[in-house]
Amino acid sequence: MVTSKKLLFFGFAVVVVFAAIATLITVLVLTNNKEEEKNGEDNESYEGPTFGYLCKDSICVRTEINLSNINDSSSLNVCRLTCNTDIGTLWPKPSGSVAFSKRVAPINPNQITISTNNFKGQTYWQVAWQRFREMLFRKIPTDSKSNSRGKSILIEIIAENDDIDFNYDTFEGYKLRIIEDSSNIYVYISARNFYGTRHALETLSQLVVYDEFNEELVILTYADITDEPKFKHRGISMDTSRTFYPVDVIKRTINGLAMVKLNTFHWHITDAQSFPLEIKSRPELTRLGAYSPDKVYTTSDIRDIVEFAKARGVRVIPEFDAPAHVGEGWQESQLTMCYKDSSQTVGWRGHFDPTKDELYNILEDIYKEIVESFKPIVMHMGGDEVAIDCWNTSQMIKDWMNDRNMETNIEGFMRLWDYFQRNALSKFDAVSNSQLPIILWTSRLTEEPFLTEFLDKNRYIIQVWLDGNDAKIKTLLEAGYKLIISNSDALYLDCGVGWWVNEGLNWCSPYKTWQKIYNNRMESIAGNYIDQILGAEATIWSESIDEGVIDMRIWPRASALAERLWTNPTTPWANAEARLLMNSQLLVEVGELAVEPLQLEWCVQNENECPF
Amino acid sequence: MVTSKKLLFFGFAVVVVFAAIATLITVLVLTNNKEEEKNGEDNESYEGPTFGYLCKDSICVRTEINLSNINDSSSLNVCRLTCNTDIGTLWPKPSGSVAFSKRVAPINPNQITISTNNFKGQTYWQVAWQRFREMLFRKIPTDSKSNSRGKSILIEIIAENDDIDFNYDTFEGYKLRIIEDSSNIYVYISARNFYGTRHALETLSQLVVYDEFNEELVILTYADITDEPKFKHRGISMDTSRTFYPVDVIKRTINGLAMVKLNTFHWHITDAQSFPLEIKSRPELTRLGAYSPDKVYTTSDIRDIVEFAKARGVRVIPEFDAPAHVGEGWQESQLTMCYKDSSQTVGWRGHFDPTKDELYNILEDIYKEIVESFKPIVMHMGGDEVAIDCWNTSQMIKDWMNDRNMETNIEGFMRLWDYFQRNALSKFDAVSNSQLPIILWTSRLTEEPFLTEFLDKNRYIIQVWLDGNDAKIKTLLEAGYKLIISNSDALYLDCGVGWWVNEGLNWCSPYKTWQKIYNNRMESIAGNYIDQILGAEATIWSESIDEGVIDMRIWPRASALAERLWTNPTTPWANAEARLLMNSQLLVEVGELAVEPLQLEWCVQNENECPF
Repeated sequence: MVTSKKLLFFGFAVVVVFAAIATLITVLVLTNNKEEEKNGEDNESYEGPTFGYLCKDSICVRTEINLSNINDSSSLNVCRLTCNTDIGTLWPKPSGSVAFSKRVAPINPNQITISTNNFKGQTYWQVAWQRFREMLFRKIPTDSKSNSRGKSILIEIIAENDDIDFNYDTFEGYKLRIIEDSSNIYVYISARNFYGTRHALETLSQLVVYDEFNEELVILTYADITDEPKFKHRGISMDTSRTFYPVDVIKRTINGLAMVKLNTFHWHITDAQSFPLEIKSRPELTRLGAYSPDKVYTTSDIRDIVEFAKARGVRVIPEFDAPAHVGEGWQESQLTMCYKDSSQTVGWRGHFDPTKDELYNILEDIYKEIVESFKPIVMHMGGDEVAIDCWNTSQMIKDWMNDRNMETNIEGFMRLWDYFQRNALSKFDAVSNSQLPIILWTSRLTEEPFLTEFLDKNRYIIQVWLDGNDAKIKTLLEAGYKLIISNSDALYLDCGVGWWVNEGLNWCSPYKTWQKIYNNRMESIAGNYIDQILGAEATIWSESIDEGVIDMRIWPRASALAERLWTNPTTPWANAEARLLMNSQLLVEVGELAVEPLQLEWCVQNENECPF
Repeated sequence: MVTSKKLLFFGFAVVVVFAAIATLITVLVLTNNKEEEKNGEDNESYEGPTFGYLCKDSICVRTEINLSNINDSSSLNVCRLTCNTDIGTLWPKPSGSVAFSKRVAPINPNQITISTNNFKGQTYWQVAWQRFREMLFRKIPTDSKSNSRGKSILIEIIAENDDIDFNYDTFEGYKLRIIEDSSNIYVYISARNFYGTRHALETLSQLVVYDEFNEELVILTYADITDEPKFKHRGISMDTSRTFYPVDVIKRTINGLAMVKLNTFHWHITDAQSFPLEIKSRPELTRLGAYSPDKVYTTSDIRDIVEFAKARGVRVIPEFDAPAHVGEGWQESQLTMCYKDSSQTVGWRGHFDPTKDELYNILEDIYKEIVESFKPIVMHMGGDEVAIDCWNTSQMIKDWMNDRNMETNIEGFMRLWDYFQRNALSKFDAVSNSQLPIILWTSRLTEEPFLTEFLDKNRYIIQVWLDGNDAKIKTLLEAGYKLIISNSDALYLDCGVGWWVNEGLNWCSPYKTWQKIYNNRMESIAGNYIDQILGAEATIWSESIDEGVIDMRIWPRASALAERLWTNPTTPWANAEARLLMNSQLLVEVGELAVEPLQLEWCVQNENECPF
């Protein structure tokens, strides 16, 4: 007991001594701080960044910082997140209601927890959640002294179902709410399904920015957003025949699509110039058709890409273009014609010979493997640029047609094309579970009288590459077809650079600017038939594009398309410009993409002052 | 002795036994080979690359390989090196005489030795030699099983002098000879100086290609080349004010220039939008004018770049643009006007107030540090886009002019400009050793009557950014000025993409294709005055270019300019096309540059068949 008392006394003494020391230190520190403050005031000394941003009339104004304005100034990212009348620099802008505070709180990216009612253990959800966390960490510069102070984030997800089907009936909307208390940020996300919640996380990630002044991530302290897309089909098409893109290029492109809530990756896999699609039952197609043995998409590559995309809210639509645009890979098949025939007006485009029965057996094998690897919800059968001048050169074809009472005039050759399309489709249907929707490019076949005679409007969706004001679009709409818009006067991202003919600018020059894409309203194209517009796609034909340049051809112009289709804004491009510059930075920093620069850095630093 | 005899006998026995074993093995191997051969013949089995190249009529034709053509076929690189009527895929093509064999020999890149008569221990030479070796190794793919068989290379360099001055009198020609014997390749290079020998190594490196069939480097077994440039001034200009490019971007660009024997890096360092040039005696210029503190070229950065360039046969020409195109950095100086004044027709361009004496003191400080860091052989003083509408707004300037009997009309304002230019030049001359040549952009000042009144043709070189057919060019030539051609209708590499005005294509759209640049003959611009053309520069103004995209804006179009100026071919672009595609590959593989793709891979694989 004595010992115990002694210890107690000793302990008390220690506490007293330490308390005394602590008090002394506190007094000294306070005195010191006060003196420093005083010195600061006396000398008007300021040692920090030269420039900061002041929010004036919803514009972030670059201003030299001094002691009198330092408390009102913030870093560019923080100012842009809080200063404007919309919400931050969200891209695409929400289409529904938005409320938000103009305050930010620092967060601790290592302290984010999430609860879901539905998705536990689901693979897609794990990918989405992992990706969300990675996106936040990528916002932190590598040389940042960012520490782990800041609030924890608790995210609660409520989804109505755990369905991962992703078709034209999938509702992609969501609600997102952010609130804070003294130690945490709470985020509530509700949506009908995985895809809506995924989009909500995308939005949430854009409401977190890196504050370079304090070297920390910050988030808005309050937000309430209701959001859904205006169009169902929002995407790009990529051409892997003219140029083979490695799998990682395709993946980073899909990642970019996910960042701006585009939901469609239309894959124009094959064409005349190369055949990079592994068909295990027909190995000669890639052996003879690939640029080289390593420039082949294997079945496992494709499954990998399709799953990668779906976990990012992106559906992959395979295109096997036929009966034209075939060549390499078919050299020894005896089933193609006109390829590399310089006397033909068809130029580069080989054509299948539709009269050969063996053709349809090979097509069935191709379709079978495509269906197995892609599990598509819609199939693109091409139908681009068929030239009857090609078939017309073959006496065998003309004899075959005569035997079947087809005249060898335009009507007859269109019937021959119809014969091909019906046979190809029946082979496709034979290997797919259900009668999937089929997409075809606009062509002679999609003009009257052939259109309504040969193409069932309940089966076929038409992808329009005509100019946006072409009268043929109205004909399609009046006949009741659903359309995907890729008007080449606005949405062909490969236009305007050099080509290899005519000392040469390519056929669809000039370059399509983001402003043109942003202003490319579906209503201007479809008028009262707007409900028949599924959406739109920007195309990236790859005659003059390779893996070094493709990012810049796509970005940030695909972002302009994304806002056109998700938000369908009525305001002009000029209102979106400062925000698109920030989206470009995000695509670079978080998406690890290269972007075409729209403006010089001066314009990023001086919001809405460029040009003067 | 006994021991020794025993050893001798033992040794003899060992030799006999080993010889017996070796013979046995040889017999077994031969038998085995024979059987394999026999099997091969029987089964017609061929297991190698699907496609190879056959040389037919000087064209490499892609052909499916089989047992009957395997001995005639080669890889693409080897075929292109040996098949044509020129020599390999050299870019730029030699301007002098060429003889060569169509055979190649494998080389061992680890066994290259060099001897020089003059350069031992010289820094530039060490860089050039090290760089040559690196270029060879970069040709070998990382996954190559390349081994060290192949011949050794012995290079002997004879230079007339060890002078490293690099001015307009420097002769850049060289002679290069390759011969072989049974174990070695001998290379003889002779030139007047370091720069000629450096160019010869560049040529030599292009005569070594990687043979992907045999996974080894090969070289032509015989060549005899005499080569020299047709024009003295061959380069690009880069704008680091609108966009700041990190030092490594500038270095890789200069490396690219060296690869195609361009010899000039014209550095448009400052402009209105940012001031990234460290001036130690005037630190406020970068403090207020740089985009950020890390976007500054320090004095040591500049010295590093200048030396880096010179060792690659590239001279750096600094431009300090004045009296217009100033703005950021000068905010607190009271020496500029009209900057950011949207009411001015001058738009973005701030102007110096030439009446302020203090201005010339600051200019002297700037020039002093430029001369010290750049050690220029020629100075660019800008003189671009001066607007008298700006000076005309200032009553103080007009009063100052009246006091000096200058009228406030165009003649008067041009005299004011002349006043500025004379004062600025005298400050420049005060801090530089000799009266260096001065370059100015074409402007009102370079038109008559001001031209011959104000600008001494023996002192000033005029850089032309007018269209190539502008009559003002003839005026300049008739008046006896030396010109550098940068006609904006062909040599402005920033044209044709989006801009931030007018839903916007930029002012000099469309895009300038390589064909246009290749066909941009100096003789068409200068006629009989061709001797007054020092050369040409492609410009890369950076309002819509950043470090992600700049490589592709420059390459391979700068290569087209390189051949125009080095070789000055009389043949049309179409003859150079297949070779330029190979040069593009070289820029990517060896230069580690990104290039704008000119054509699809099909066209690389099918020489001269594209398009059909």
